[in-house]
Amino acid sequence: MQTIDTLIHARWIVPVEPDDRVYQHHSLAVHEGRILGILPTDQARLRYTAGVEHDLDRHLLIPGLVNAHTHAAMTLLRGLADDLPLNEWLNNHIWPAESRWVNEEFVHDGSRLAMAEMLRGGTTCFNDMYFFPDVTARAAAHCGMRACVGLIVIDFPTVWAQDADEYISKGLAVHDHYRGDPLIRTAFAPHAPYTVSDGPLERVRVLADELDIGIHMHVHETVEEIRTAVELTGVRPLSRLQELGLVSPALMAVHMTQLAPEEIRGYAGSGAHIVHCPESNMKLASGFCPVAELAGAGVNIALGTDGPASNNDLDMIGEMRTAALLGKLVSGDASALPAHAVLRMATLNGATALGLGEQTGSLTPGKWADMAAIRLDTIETQPLYEPVSQLVYACGRDQVTDVWVAGQHLLKERQLTTLDIHEILHRARDWQARIRTTDN
Amino acid sequence: MQTIDTLIHARWIVPVEPDDRVYQHHSLAVHEGRILGILPTDQARLRYTAGVEHDLDRHLLIPGLVNAHTHAAMTLLRGLADDLPLNEWLNNHIWPAESRWVNEEFVHDGSRLAMAEMLRGGTTCFNDMYFFPDVTARAAAHCGMRACVGLIVIDFPTVWAQDADEYISKGLAVHDHYRGDPLIRTAFAPHAPYTVSDGPLERVRVLADELDIGIHMHVHETVEEIRTAVELTGVRPLSRLQELGLVSPALMAVHMTQLAPEEIRGYAGSGAHIVHCPESNMKLASGFCPVAELAGAGVNIALGTDGPASNNDLDMIGEMRTAALLGKLVSGDASALPAHAVLRMATLNGATALGLGEQTGSLTPGKWADMAAIRLDTIETQPLYEPVSQLVYACGRDQVTDVWVAGQHLLKERQLTTLDIHEILHRARDWQARIRTTDN
Repeated sequence: MQTIDTLIHARWIVPVEPDDRVYQHHSLAVHEGRILGILPTDQARLRYTAGVEHDLDRHLLIPGLVNAHTHAAMTLLRGLADDLPLNEWLNNHIWPAESRWVNEEFVHDGSRLAMAEMLRGGTTCFNDMYFFPDVTARAAAHCGMRACVGLIVIDFPTVWAQDADEYISKGLAVHDHYRGDPLIRTAFAPHAPYTVSDGPLERVRVLADELDIGIHMHVHETVEEIRTAVELTGVRPLSRLQELGLVSPALMAVHMTQLAPEEIRGYAGSGAHIVHCPESNMKLASGFCPVAELAGAGVNIALGTDGPASNNDLDMIGEMRTAALLGKLVSGDASALPAHAVLRMATLNGATALGLGEQTGSLTPGKWADMAAIRLDTIETQPLYEPVSQLVYACGRDQVTDVWVAGQHLLKERQLTTLDIHEILHRARDWQARIRTTDN
Repeated sequence: MQTIDTLIHARWIVPVEPDDRVYQHHSLAVHEGRILGILPTDQARLRYTAGVEHDLDRHLLIPGLVNAHTHAAMTLLRGLADDLPLNEWLNNHIWPAESRWVNEEFVHDGSRLAMAEMLRGGTTCFNDMYFFPDVTARAAAHCGMRACVGLIVIDFPTVWAQDADEYISKGLAVHDHYRGDPLIRTAFAPHAPYTVSDGPLERVRVLADELDIGIHMHVHETVEEIRTAVELTGVRPLSRLQELGLVSPALMAVHMTQLAPEEIRGYAGSGAHIVHCPESNMKLASGFCPVAELAGAGVNIALGTDGPASNNDLDMIGEMRTAALLGKLVSGDASALPAHAVLRMATLNGATALGLGEQTGSLTPGKWADMAAIRLDTIETQPLYEPVSQLVYACGRDQVTDVWVAGQHLLKERQLTTLDIHEILHRARDWQARIRTTDN
């Protein structure tokens, strides 16, 4: 008998890698935060003596979900101004609220609210872009959640920095602080082609290459973005990024709702990643990313919720459902984006985009034990013919019962173990009272 | 002091009629199953002595949701065969399973499973189309849920009837049995233009007119349906229905994903209703109903989930979200289908389509007390700036705590009071074991 930390017996285990595999009545062994292996439960009971055992006899165990595009702290602006045209929403509500209210305390409280929501929904890792990335990183490390924090870069001054040089130097300090951290990774996050000029983008490219980190950027979100760029520069934003050398395996281009056929072919050859945010794109009437075509061309496509001000949730199970439904609709093919494929987008593809494909995203021996367990025995998910289909098309995030990150049990029978939910809610209500006074 | 049955104090009450109204710290008074009125809580406490009082101090109270298109018993086939092209899904899986398994017991067990799911998600009324409508009606009446059962008519023989004459005569018997029933209403349900020929449709029109009941029918669901009809008959299905006199205020046309501009104008003038089923249309890659245009033209548009075999849930809160997001995307306008408008689609518009607009669908004095209460104080729905926005864009159906139909408390702090959930689950698992043996 081998002595290990944790043994989890599950009704179904879907490792995501290999593709389409569903293990029944198997167990997953964890030691020192990492996955040792998956084997039939009867064999597992003979081979291991575990410090902790969990019987998840009505549950599906999957890799923790990877939310590949968030502005976590914006939970505090959730639903502040819905059902408005994009420009009015941004110019008259979101940007004024941000410039009035965003500070370290806002980012701390908003990020923790977001992490509580994400963990309760089975998400173990998120790829963030916001001001004060140091604060978000500290909050994630403190609660034991995996995060890639974006070192934001914008041409104009904000509460976080005055100019591109200061954004980059503050970002580099955050990167240095978390170098080698087991939970926190960084990526440059130049906001968008229309908010960052060529000089800073070239510096970002050189530095990202030197430091071997990613570049997280909104690209081709709206028709308007492209029209304006073509008017001002004569080229489409993606062409400009290509000329600047940014379209490489380091790039995580978010949204990508506007793509010409030759852009799809060119992108596929570059090794760059795409983060698809279907609910945000729909809610803001931006358009849709041609996922089935891109995936067919070989592009790695991850899934993100975007910020809760434009979604309005951080629900990756819901986002998988929307991605599958929208993918079928826009491709005119009911077999496009099947359930297993969207689960892969929401796990391994996300980890790969973040440069964490060797560390997380699938239940593979040697990877961190980042996992979520989902009860499937409720009225809403019975009868059950295929567990991944049930997860994607019928399940609610309230059915997530347990979540582990690097083997640490962060959600235990729906109770958060490292976050104080009452304090988080108390602070959310405080912010609500303050913010409401200034929004018209 | 006036003595009444029930007084409900709520943090927010949204009556749906009048439009866009949100009452804060108000109370709703119920007597003999009907709504007496809504008034400020401090005044309500002075005016009424109630047999039962409920303090919903963290809740939103809304009219019960009306699911305007279901095949309830098909819950037993939930997720049997997903991610397949429509024809393969129907011909190789759904229809064989139905012809092998559908009987009275199937419809009884499947309908009860569906009702448990619907009540737990805030739905108080559903508009069904399936075999053995007598069984569905009996199950609904028995658990106290409101239903409009479809008197199905198809040209070809099934387990329910042999030919159009028998479908109609059995349907009339069901109608007679429930005439005057406070909970159960009937509508004719000729399945679709391509499965019912002119003769039976003309009889349905005459009978529906005599009996003053609705006509519930799948219309223009797919491009294929229209192409085939034009090849066979020379006219589009909607034109044929118009010529047969079926396009009248009695008609509830379900799906309507394929509409030419002149069809939209013509339909708007007819007073006929549309039932929009966005998730089913997306999942089967059928297309989308142009809701914003139709609503702009004055068409009453209700919302339905369709059967759980093609959705795969009966979640009207999720369906509202999808309707809003899809409506914005396809109209290219982020202000299209705002939250209050989709809540109206999911309540009053549904009741109106079913001919129940004077009985339910809004919290209006004199109507039946059909209501749902939703907790909004959880991590997922905080902070909160606008409760209806929160309901549509962030809330999960698990946040529904209480449901009443005609004043009867059918879901009480998430416990069903008239349905035995353990027995329902037991029977669902039994069916699963049987059905799985015959699906390939």
